[in-house]
Amino acid sequence: MSEADGPEAEVRRVNEAFYAAVEAGDLDRLTELCCADRPLVCVHPGVAPIHGTGAVLRSWALVMASTDYIQFFLTDVQVTLQGDVAVLTCAENMLTAGEEPALGGEDQPTGFRGGKAQAMNVFTKESTGWRMWIHQASPVGSDRI
Amino acid sequence: MSEADGPEAEVRRVNEAFYAAVEAGDLDRLTELCCADRPLVCVHPGVAPIHGTGAVLRSWALVMASTDYIQFFLTDVQVTLQGDVAVLTCAENMLTAGEEPALGGEDQPTGFRGGKAQAMNVFTKESTGWRMWIHQASPVGSDRI
Repeated sequence: MSEADGPEAEVRRVNEAFYAAVEAGDLDRLTELCCADRPLVCVHPGVAPIHGTGAVLRSWALVMASTDYIQFFLTDVQVTLQGDVAVLTCAENMLTAGEEPALGGEDQPTGFRGGKAQAMNVFTKESTGWRMWIHQASPVGSDRI
Repeated sequence: MSEADGPEAEVRRVNEAFYAAVEAGDLDRLTELCCADRPLVCVHPGVAPIHGTGAVLRSWALVMASTDYIQFFLTDVQVTLQGDVAVLTCAENMLTAGEEPALGGEDQPTGFRGGKAQAMNVFTKESTGWRMWIHQASPVGSDRI
């Protein structure tokens, strides 16, 4: 088994897929990537924790519905594996924007802002693969680009 | 088994004991309350994550050494149990102070400040009991008293 096929690489791929689902506003894909066997726990930046899969998924739906445009650049990704649980930490470097209608074309993002959060994502191995169980993101300051 | 003896109550007691150890600046006690079987992972507010038991314990030693006085009032404690892992979230309402020598008595705390963080603490069941594995605290604003 090469390193690219090992559990750490798989956890990193699922983590990237999770953020890609948030970028795409794809709640179905995000749900697929979350634990089905354990109740989710989530702490979004600066707000109270959310316990329970339904409530956590609704919170992600709200985050995505209220974000016109978001792109994540993940840095400092570190994984600690422990049996069927993996703890991944990373910096979420975010680029967000509003949108405004373009003349005769697709809406264009406008008013870019940068932000940064420190995330801890805990994954468990389920029959379908590694799935996100716990997510916490801490604000660590922000920059306007 | 009464509720006071169940795993959730035990996790809550260990969580309180952990914060009491920080208040007391007792690194030995804090170490006892942390996992011995798994590498610790910790995200203090606003700084990079720390992976590895030695590094995490050194970070707590530094926090305690650089804090003259700290008292935690834990609120909104919620626990999700999943087999031998428990996810506890709580608000850390902190009262901190410097110290100054008192005339003919013990040093007295002075210059009180309040702060608040949102914590996620993940515990695992070891042979010695429930022990803290993962800690993350997110800043959520602060107040000066």
